[in-house]
Amino acid sequence: MGDYINEFCMHTATCGQLGLEDVDGEVVLCGWAWHNRDHGGLIFVDLRDRDGYTQIVVDPDCVSAEDFAAAEHLGREYVLRVTGKVRARAEEAVNPNMATGAIEVLASKLEVLNTSVTPPFSIEDGIETDEITRMKWRYLDIRRPEMLANLKLRHRAAHALRNALDKRGFFEVETPILANSTPEGARDYIVPSRPNPGKFYALPQSPQQFKQMLMCAGIERYYQIARCFRDEDLRADRQPEFTQLDIEMSFVEGDDVIDMMEDVMAEVLPQVGVAQEFPLQRMQWAEAMDKYGCDRPDVRFGMLLHNITDLVKNTGFKVFASVAQQGGVVKAINAKGAGDWSRGEVEKLASIAEENGAKGMAWVAFTTDGQEKSPIKKFFTDEEWAALKAEMEVEPGDLLLFAADKPEVANAVLSALRLHMAEALDVPREGHALLWVVNFPMFKYDEGEKKYSAEHHPFTQVLREDLDKIEDVPLECGSYSYDLVMDGYELGGGTIRIHNADEQRRVLRRLGLTDAEIDEKFGHLIHALELGAPPHGGIALGLDRFIMLLAEKPSIRDVIAFPKTSSASDPMTGAPSEVTARQLKEVDLRLL
Amino acid sequence: MGDYINEFCMHTATCGQLGLEDVDGEVVLCGWAWHNRDHGGLIFVDLRDRDGYTQIVVDPDCVSAEDFAAAEHLGREYVLRVTGKVRARAEEAVNPNMATGAIEVLASKLEVLNTSVTPPFSIEDGIETDEITRMKWRYLDIRRPEMLANLKLRHRAAHALRNALDKRGFFEVETPILANSTPEGARDYIVPSRPNPGKFYALPQSPQQFKQMLMCAGIERYYQIARCFRDEDLRADRQPEFTQLDIEMSFVEGDDVIDMMEDVMAEVLPQVGVAQEFPLQRMQWAEAMDKYGCDRPDVRFGMLLHNITDLVKNTGFKVFASVAQQGGVVKAINAKGAGDWSRGEVEKLASIAEENGAKGMAWVAFTTDGQEKSPIKKFFTDEEWAALKAEMEVEPGDLLLFAADKPEVANAVLSALRLHMAEALDVPREGHALLWVVNFPMFKYDEGEKKYSAEHHPFTQVLREDLDKIEDVPLECGSYSYDLVMDGYELGGGTIRIHNADEQRRVLRRLGLTDAEIDEKFGHLIHALELGAPPHGGIALGLDRFIMLLAEKPSIRDVIAFPKTSSASDPMTGAPSEVTARQLKEVDLRLL
Repeated sequence: MGDYINEFCMHTATCGQLGLEDVDGEVVLCGWAWHNRDHGGLIFVDLRDRDGYTQIVVDPDCVSAEDFAAAEHLGREYVLRVTGKVRARAEEAVNPNMATGAIEVLASKLEVLNTSVTPPFSIEDGIETDEITRMKWRYLDIRRPEMLANLKLRHRAAHALRNALDKRGFFEVETPILANSTPEGARDYIVPSRPNPGKFYALPQSPQQFKQMLMCAGIERYYQIARCFRDEDLRADRQPEFTQLDIEMSFVEGDDVIDMMEDVMAEVLPQVGVAQEFPLQRMQWAEAMDKYGCDRPDVRFGMLLHNITDLVKNTGFKVFASVAQQGGVVKAINAKGAGDWSRGEVEKLASIAEENGAKGMAWVAFTTDGQEKSPIKKFFTDEEWAALKAEMEVEPGDLLLFAADKPEVANAVLSALRLHMAEALDVPREGHALLWVVNFPMFKYDEGEKKYSAEHHPFTQVLREDLDKIEDVPLECGSYSYDLVMDGYELGGGTIRIHNADEQRRVLRRLGLTDAEIDEKFGHLIHALELGAPPHGGIALGLDRFIMLLAEKPSIRDVIAFPKTSSASDPMTGAPSEVTARQLKEVDLRLL
Repeated sequence: MGDYINEFCMHTATCGQLGLEDVDGEVVLCGWAWHNRDHGGLIFVDLRDRDGYTQIVVDPDCVSAEDFAAAEHLGREYVLRVTGKVRARAEEAVNPNMATGAIEVLASKLEVLNTSVTPPFSIEDGIETDEITRMKWRYLDIRRPEMLANLKLRHRAAHALRNALDKRGFFEVETPILANSTPEGARDYIVPSRPNPGKFYALPQSPQQFKQMLMCAGIERYYQIARCFRDEDLRADRQPEFTQLDIEMSFVEGDDVIDMMEDVMAEVLPQVGVAQEFPLQRMQWAEAMDKYGCDRPDVRFGMLLHNITDLVKNTGFKVFASVAQQGGVVKAINAKGAGDWSRGEVEKLASIAEENGAKGMAWVAFTTDGQEKSPIKKFFTDEEWAALKAEMEVEPGDLLLFAADKPEVANAVLSALRLHMAEALDVPREGHALLWVVNFPMFKYDEGEKKYSAEHHPFTQVLREDLDKIEDVPLECGSYSYDLVMDGYELGGGTIRIHNADEQRRVLRRLGLTDAEIDEKFGHLIHALELGAPPHGGIALGLDRFIMLLAEKPSIRDVIAFPKTSSASDPMTGAPSEVTARQLKEVDLRLL
C-alpha cells in the first residue's frame, strides 16, 4: 500500500491491490461504482479504478444513516471515496478470478464525490457499441478496462523503448511540427502563416530531413517519439496523424542499425509480454517476394509460393505457357484443407485475384476421397501433372491456387490469397513473429509514368558494389535497407543514408530531377552533405501499429486515445469545424 | 570503452572518454577534424565528436604514405575515422583543462569519411555570428559544443522528468495535434480538412481539454511532453510551437498537485545540476503582488515594493495625495547604489514606467555624500519625509522610485523598474530560486470590455469557502491555483479543476456566456462532468523555458533544435513556403 500511486491524492490504496496481507488495515479507496446490489440488508458495491476493482460492503450498522442512504441511491458510474477496513471474505465468497477476490472492504464512511447520468453504453469489456458512439463519448469508452489496458500498454512500451535508447546513448530531440512541404511524398496538411501571407507550413510526414540534419549537426544518436501527418484516405491502420519511433545514428554502415534495433527489441519485448527468440531472421527482399509474394511476410505459417514457371512453360494450357514464354511467372500455393471446397466456393476466390490485378485464377482441388477436380487438368501431360504434384507436395485435401502474370502481379495475387486462405482455414498463427526483410532494390520503374522512383526513399545508400549501376542499370542496384516485420505487418523500416553530396545528386538525377530541381527541392540537404556530413542511417517504427499488434486489436484506433473517424473527424470535440471570417482573413484566405 | 554508445557503430571509443587507464589500447575514433596543425614533421589533429575531443598524432613513420598525404590536406570539419594506439602525452604536453588532455592517439590508419567545404562560421563556442545565419546553417550551429550541450541537457532533463513521473504512476498519453479550436484562447493555427470542405482543425494551444477528458476516462495520472501552438507575435521567449510538460491527476484536492510536483522536482533538479532546497516557499498571490508587483517574483534579490499610500495620503504632493484618496496606491522601491546617478540618468527611467502604464515617475536620490535630490521633496512635511525615509530604510547612496496609480499599474511599473535596476546595478542573482505562487483570484475584471475573465482559466475550482461569491462578488473568489516560478520566470502553472457540471456552468455564466454558448463551446466538457468526472487537477511546465533557465541562456531559441525566426520562418528549410494551386484547390481555398 506504500506505492507512489497512492501518494499526493485522496486515497491510500488502489482498487486493484488489496489482498489477505492487508486484512484489518484501514484504507481509503476512490473509484467508480461499477456493479451495485442489495443482499441481506447490506449493499455491495464493486468499486473500480484503473487498477482493478474491490468489493465494498456497506452495512447500516457500520456507517452513518446518511451514508447508508447515499449507498442505497448509488447510480452507475457515481464517483466514490470509501473509508473502511479490509477483511477476509467468507470462504464461499472468495473469488479466485478477481485480483482482490480474497478480501472486501467494510465501509465506515462513504462519500459521493460526483454523480453520473446514465451512460450511453455500458462500461464493460466486449461491448458491441458502434465505433462512432464510442468516439463521441471517448472518455467513457476509455474507462472500459480493455481500453485502459491498451493505453497502459502503450505507455509501458513507449517508456521501455525510451529507456533502452537512453541507455544506448540516444538523445531525444524534438523536431518541428510547423515544417516545410516534403517533395515527392504523400499529400501534406498545410497551415497558413499569418506573418507570411500566401505562405504555408506543412505538417511533417516524418522527421526524415530533420533527423538527417541532426546527424550533420553532430548529435550522433537521435530518437524521437514523433507525431507524423499524412492527408490520405483512411483505412483501419491509417490515421491523419500517427506516431513513429524515429531513430538515427551516425558513424554506422551496413547492418549496424539493424543490430542496434535488434538489441533494443530484445530488451523491450519481454517487458511488454512478448517472448521472441533472438537473433531475428534476416530475409533477403528477393526471397520474401519469391516465397511470400510480399515484403512483409507473416512467417507464422507456411503455404509458401512455388515458382512453377519452368514446369509449365510448354504445357498445353496456353495461359500458363504464353505467360512463361513472355517473361512472366507462374506461381502457386497449396491451401491444405480446402480440397473439399465446392467449385462455387473456390471460384469466389477469383475476385481476390482480380482485385490484385489478375485476369483470372486457375485452381486444382484434391479431395480427401482422392478425386482431382480442375478446369485445367486436361491441358497437362501426365508427366507435367506428376511434376506439379511433386513440386507442390500434394496430398488429398489440398487446393492449389495459381497466378500467371508479371512477377509483381503474380506475387500480389498469391500473397493476398495466402492470407485469405489462412484466415478462411483458421491456420494457427498464435503469438508473434518478428523478422527483418533486407536489401530492397534501390529503384523501381513505373511503366505508366515512365520513370524511376525510389523503392525505400531517395536518401538511401546504394550497395557499394552497385554504385556503378545507378545511371545505366538502376534496377540492378541493391540498397542498404531493412524493414522490421511483425505478424505480417511492416512495423518499420530504415536505411543507411547517402552522406556524400555527389552520390545524392546522382540518385536524384536518376529519379528524373534536373540539377535546378535538385537545388530547389533538396538544396539544404545537399549543402549539409557538403559540410562534413558523417556516415549515418536510421529507422522508424510505427508505434500505433506496434501497440495494436501487442494488444492484439484489429485497429490502431483501439490504441490511440483520441482517434479520428474514417472522414478524419472527431465526434467528441467536433473537429474539424468552421472558422470565423476574421480567422480566414487574418491568413489571407477565402473559401471557394 | 565498453559503453553502449560505442556499440553498433564504426568506432570503439568516443573522443571524450580516453585517459591514462587506456594507454596502449587500440582504439578507433570517429569525428570531425577541428584544429589541425603541423609540428616537427608530425600532424596534430584535434578530433571532435559530441562527447569531447582527442589529440590525434599522425606520424609519417606510423601510417601509409597515402594516409599521411590525406592528413596533410585535411580541411576544417572533414569527417575522419582514425585507428591508433592510446599513449600518454609527454609531461610538458599534458593539458589539464581538457578531459582527454593526459593522452593522445598515435594514428596507424586515417580514413577521410567525408570532406567539407569551408563553413560559413567557426564551429566554436561564443561566436558572434548573427542568429539568422546560425539558423540557416543550423546543423553547423548545433555542432558547436555549447549548442550540443544545450540539447544534451534538454534530453537529460526530459528523461529525468519522464522517469520520475513513470515511477509515480503517470501514464504518458498522446493527445491530438489536429484538434479543435479553443474558445477564448490566443489565436489558433488552423489546418484545412480536405474531406470536410470549409472546415478546419486547430493546432492545440495546450492539451487542456483532452487531459480533463483523460481524467474523466479514468486514466487517473497522465503526463505528456506535448507540443503546443500559438499564433502570436514572437519575443525572445515565445515561439510558434513550444513544448510543455503536461500533467493531470485524479482524486486530488487542495495542495496535492503542488506536493506531487515538488516531489518530482526534488528528484529531477539534482540530475540537471541544480541544488535547490525543499520544501519550496509557497507565497500567496496577494503577497507576491504586494511585495514584488508581479506573480512571478525573482526572489534571488530584495528591493521589495513598499506600500506608502497611508504615509502620503495627506501630503502636499497632489499626485500622491489624490491617487491615495481615490482608491489608488502609492508604492516605492529602494534601488541601493543608484543614489549618485545623474538627474538625466534617473529621468530616463520614466520611460520604463510609462511603458508600463504610468503617467510619470517620481524619485528621490540620496547621494553618498549626504545630499537629498528630488523634485518632490519640497511638497513633504518634515514628519512625512522622516516617515518615508524610515519606511524605505534609506541610507546614503539610495535611489527611491515611486509609482502612484491603480494597484495593477503601480505594481507593473515597480516590478519592471525593480528588474531593470537589478540589471543596471548588477545586483547578485546567482544560482536558481524556485517557489510557488498560490491562490490566484478566480476572476479579474476588464474595465475596457466591461466583463470578467478568468485569472488562470475557466476550469479552475473556486476555493470551497468562496463558492457563494461567484455570482455577486466574483472578485473576492480565490481559487485552487499555483504557479511554479523560477528565477523570475513563470515556469508553469496549474489548478485544481472543476469536476461538477453545475459549478462549471456557474463560472462560465459569470464570464458572460449564455447557456446556449456554454452548450455550443463547452458541451463536451459539461457532458463529461455529468458522466462521473472524478475530482482532478494538474499543472503544465514550459519545457523550453525550463531548459533555457537551466542552461542559463538568454533565449529559448538556444535550447530548441530548429526554432523559428521572429517572423515565424525557418531559414534552413524555407518554411513557410508557397503551395501549388492544386494544393489550395484540394482544400477549397484561394488566396485573397
